[in-house]
Amino acid sequence: MTPATRLGQNQYGKAETRVVRVTRDGTTHHVRDLNVSVALSGDMEAVHRSGDNAAVLTTDTTKNTVFALAREHGIASPEDFGLLLARHFVAGQPTIHRARIRIEEYAWERIPTPGEAAHSFVRAGGGTRTAQITFDGRRAEILSGLTGVTVLNTTDSEFHGYLKDRYTTLPETTDRVLATDVTAVWRHAHDGTGAAGAAPDWDAAHAAARAYLLDAFATTYSYSLQQTLFAMGSRVIEELPGVEEIRLSLPNKHHFLVDLEPFGLANEGPDGAVYFAADRPYGLIEATVLRDGAEQRVPVDLTAPWPGGPA
Amino acid sequence: MTPATRLGQNQYGKAETRVVRVTRDGTTHHVRDLNVSVALSGDMEAVHRSGDNAAVLTTDTTKNTVFALAREHGIASPEDFGLLLARHFVAGQPTIHRARIRIEEYAWERIPTPGEAAHSFVRAGGGTRTAQITFDGRRAEILSGLTGVTVLNTTDSEFHGYLKDRYTTLPETTDRVLATDVTAVWRHAHDGTGAAGAAPDWDAAHAAARAYLLDAFATTYSYSLQQTLFAMGSRVIEELPGVEEIRLSLPNKHHFLVDLEPFGLANEGPDGAVYFAADRPYGLIEATVLRDGAEQRVPVDLTAPWPGGPA
Amino acid sequence: MTPATRLGQNQYGKAETRVVRVTRDGTTHHVRDLNVSVALSGDMEAVHRSGDNAAVLTTDTTKNTVFALAREHGIASPEDFGLLLARHFVAGQPTIHRARIRIEEYAWERIPTPGEAAHSFVRAGGGTRTAQITFDGRRAEILSGLTGVTVLNTTDSEFHGYLKDRYTTLPETTDRVLATDVTAVWRHAHDGTGAAGAAPDWDAAHAAARAYLLDAFATTYSYSLQQTLFAMGSRVIEELPGVEEIRLSLPNKHHFLVDLEPFGLANEGPDGAVYFAADRPYGLIEATVLRDGAEQRVPVDLTAPWPGGPA
Amino acid sequence: MTPATRLGQNQYGKAETRVVRVTRDGTTHHVRDLNVSVALSGDMEAVHRSGDNAAVLTTDTTKNTVFALAREHGIASPEDFGLLLARHFVAGQPTIHRARIRIEEYAWERIPTPGEAAHSFVRAGGGTRTAQITFDGRRAEILSGLTGVTVLNTTDSEFHGYLKDRYTTLPETTDRVLATDVTAVWRHAHDGTGAAGAAPDWDAAHAAARAYLLDAFATTYSYSLQQTLFAMGSRVIEELPGVEEIRLSLPNKHHFLVDLEPFGLANEGPDGAVYFAADRPYGLIEATVLRDGAEQRVPVDLTAPWPGGPA
Repeated sequence: MTPATRLGQNQYGKAETRVVRVTRDGTTHHVRDLNVSVALSGDMEAVHRSGDNAAVLTTDTTKNTVFALAREHGIASPEDFGLLLARHFVAGQPTIHRARIRIEEYAWERIPTPGEAAHSFVRAGGGTRTAQITFDGRRAEILSGLTGVTVLNTTDSEFHGYLKDRYTTLPETTDRVLATDVTAVWRHAHDGTGAAGAAPDWDAAHAAARAYLLDAFATTYSYSLQQTLFAMGSRVIEELPGVEEIRLSLPNKHHFLVDLEPFGLANEGPDGAVYFAADRPYGLIEATVLRDGAEQRVPVDLTAPWPGGPA
Repeated sequence: MTPATRLGQNQYGKAETRVVRVTRDGTTHHVRDLNVSVALSGDMEAVHRSGDNAAVLTTDTTKNTVFALAREHGIASPEDFGLLLARHFVAGQPTIHRARIRIEEYAWERIPTPGEAAHSFVRAGGGTRTAQITFDGRRAEILSGLTGVTVLNTTDSEFHGYLKDRYTTLPETTDRVLATDVTAVWRHAHDGTGAAGAAPDWDAAHAAARAYLLDAFATTYSYSLQQTLFAMGSRVIEELPGVEEIRLSLPNKHHFLVDLEPFGLANEGPDGAVYFAADRPYGLIEATVLRDGAEQRVPVDLTAPWPGGPA
Repeated sequence: MTPATRLGQNQYGKAETRVVRVTRDGTTHHVRDLNVSVALSGDMEAVHRSGDNAAVLTTDTTKNTVFALAREHGIASPEDFGLLLARHFVAGQPTIHRARIRIEEYAWERIPTPGEAAHSFVRAGGGTRTAQITFDGRRAEILSGLTGVTVLNTTDSEFHGYLKDRYTTLPETTDRVLATDVTAVWRHAHDGTGAAGAAPDWDAAHAAARAYLLDAFATTYSYSLQQTLFAMGSRVIEELPGVEEIRLSLPNKHHFLVDLEPFGLANEGPDGAVYFAADRPYGLIEATVLRDGAEQRVPVDLTAPWPGGPA
Repeated sequence: MTPATRLGQNQYGKAETRVVRVTRDGTTHHVRDLNVSVALSGDMEAVHRSGDNAAVLTTDTTKNTVFALAREHGIASPEDFGLLLARHFVAGQPTIHRARIRIEEYAWERIPTPGEAAHSFVRAGGGTRTAQITFDGRRAEILSGLTGVTVLNTTDSEFHGYLKDRYTTLPETTDRVLATDVTAVWRHAHDGTGAAGAAPDWDAAHAAARAYLLDAFATTYSYSLQQTLFAMGSRVIEELPGVEEIRLSLPNKHHFLVDLEPFGLANEGPDGAVYFAADRPYGLIEATVLRDGAEQRVPVDLTAPWPGGPA
């Protein structure tokens, strides 16, 4: 007899809809540039068992909805737009019980031009802004984040006093380069209802969190990347009362001091040094920092090196 | 007063160590080509709070260990090697309580050559094999998987009978191309102890799972990608008694029938058609299929379109 | 006075149109899966100087043409389809004097299924097939190629006897792993006219060239990657009388023997060894091999590590 | 008889050496972060024919040289460092007749911190700076460039008046979004000798060229991307007397106005609109602009969509 199988967690929707909203305020234009991924869950037993689509809002419709709601309501912020979409899907169809909206936002800076017109832009660096809004019909979970923010300290980093075993060869150091690509996701107390107070100004709150992360990275005299990570996370919790927890994923972008002794050259001194910036392998340091009393809910693997790709 | 912060889940280790093990059996050589990522957890409060590294086995040491154990014990399979590494780290240091090893394996095929020597290879396609072994000192959780297996049916796929709302424009169809990139992860009953019986032959078990997934994709007459997904997952559960659950993540790689009417051309008929293979956005269908009575433990997001990248 | 500027070489068109042609032969289906890039040149002074588009066939039209011609004429091979397109553009508009069509083809293998129906496929590995056809109204230049074919010899490779200067530290070796990603482009004598004889069977010619490249890689006892490259290129010239020249770009995918001495382990012996597969930097060896008397016309930079991306 | 084969153009060297030079000026640190690729040519017949390495400076040595010269001489600019390296290789070995150095530079901005110390950085966006220096023993060819500079105008772009043929369906428009990723390479009159005057301040010259390109993009009322390209190139030639020619490769990053009529929504008006940012296919516009009397020498294909990758 065939063993019985059961349907577990499942979700579906259109991923990576690239929507750009241009707003015109006279000759001054504004741009919001998003990548939106929708994941819906609900009464989906039949479609999995027999291909009966009666409960399915198609992924094509979820894509159309992204464009239409951007037109009808605008994009105030990734968090606002995600909440709008999530509520729309759950309210709109009784078969949809939960909606999760993941958003990336790409920033644009103005190209300075003479005259009053302001409609020219160059894409900014400094990483990508992210947001995830999940709504189950009652309350929302609102996550904000960023990724691809590459930072580097040329000094004020030491590494020693660690465990040694049979396979340890790393020499201790009292001065190294410390560099990482920051990926961070933080969870807000605000849940879309008034229970935890009014919603923050999402754009201002994001800019503040980003600035605190950079400042904590720059001003922490570091004895390990774990310590720097904890300082960065704690700073956000301490400074932003509306943030309950933050998850950080920090690859250690190794900058190895090049051995120039074979060429009769010293490679360290008061004037600096030459480093090799390595690709793989890399240390990967990940941790959650929580406000005392808060629950841990942010996913653990923000940047999983699995699956990856061959050299 | 500064609010108190608490350290939540944390893990660290060297990610993406690219180890290649060549074994020589006379003039016949064998290759195992892995990408290994180590994540350790344990007594890590001090290193986060103050940078005290006394409990830390460095990520550099975890990298060295990958190479050394590959030399000392060989690489029988990704699952065996991951279990060996995970046990080593937990057994070796009292401060390390849990080790998670993620592995990708890249396959090589032999280049046929005259004579007895067999030491030339060409990298095979057909996706990447994956494995994740987690060990907490008592038992192991062993996951096997694959990713990047791109499959396509040119017919035997319909899509209709779905919900329509204000934003639905998709026409129903009784014949479409169905294509996807399979990512799958399945969990074994075997937990590294004898409790659930002997370990399977990991290589044979993986080849069987892959073949069942492809066969179920090819032979399921499909009314939705969800149905195809469930058939693929069920087939593995039904045929492989040692598998408890399987998670599948299937992007719908849309192949849109090109509208050639403006050029006076019919684009469908008994002789075939011309399609546009789209990049983004794409439907993303994800679900877990469980053996009746099994717990759901495989992570839900195998291939998160977040964070991604701009167009 | 403003200095005068002059318009130099220019070309335009739609890049990366992803066209999939399904052909039905009863219940046996066939797939050709291409990525087509069109580049047109001609009377384009006005459009550059003043934006007068009167001579411009739009890139959107070139895309439509790819789909329409795939429907009307089918895709016999990348070379045939490229020639068809190039001739169409030059013959169709007096303002277009030259068309260059670049094509990649992705291969699919059949998934074996019971019964007569044959319409299920899995994408094959083993690299991408390429072609470039340029037509100037009189004759065509036809290039075929491949890229992403990763090969590896576990022995029969030495490296010694090289120049030493102040900055040389590399130890000589009489046994190393030799691995590379083959990118090759070769030029045919056939020019679309009958001047150099009939056109070859393009699919068969491509399969033969690929097989010769792999065989030459596998069977050449190597003292340098340059020597292996020249043997690979010469083999194609020697075996395929219709090929005039071939360009090869071979990154040296370094597999470094891991130093395990600090752990008391020998890492070489009759039973094999453990290697670290490195990403960057890598040696890059590039050369053209010509049939005696042939002109060199294939572009020199097939795979330019410039521009690339940060670590 | 085996047909004779001939060795054509060939070059070799280490590609993508990632060198980071930190300079300390008291507590103010400076960073130059490069990716350097070396390609050498010379007396290489023997190594290709027989694997005789006597004339070969190994790619490993070229990598060591990059690090050592960065330490000994510093990195004043990509152009200066490339010239230093190219001269070193040609002067250092009689078997090396020509050296081509390709460099990418990644920019870092300071993270503002209190106090005097200045050693913290965040990677800047806005694209990558490039340079290529080729030296043949007598004179150098010096190219500067940039890539990955993404720009967008939300208006002041029209497209109409183009050729129509059987396959033309594109509607004309008098208001569209115009966006592109700028890749540009320009050639300097300065050739490393005094013949064309003193070398410019390379950093200042690069910043000026970048600013002119952005300004020309932003202030050109556009009737075609070709016109915008020519305006951008001409501006650089007109403003920078030391530049002889410039090559531009501009993908048309299509932003399609979404059709919202099926939902009863107008998607254009004085308040803006919603666009879909497409990936592939894309228009690709490439041209060289020359100072009157200058020769065209910059390579034609800066960003070849060939080979690429499957969807």
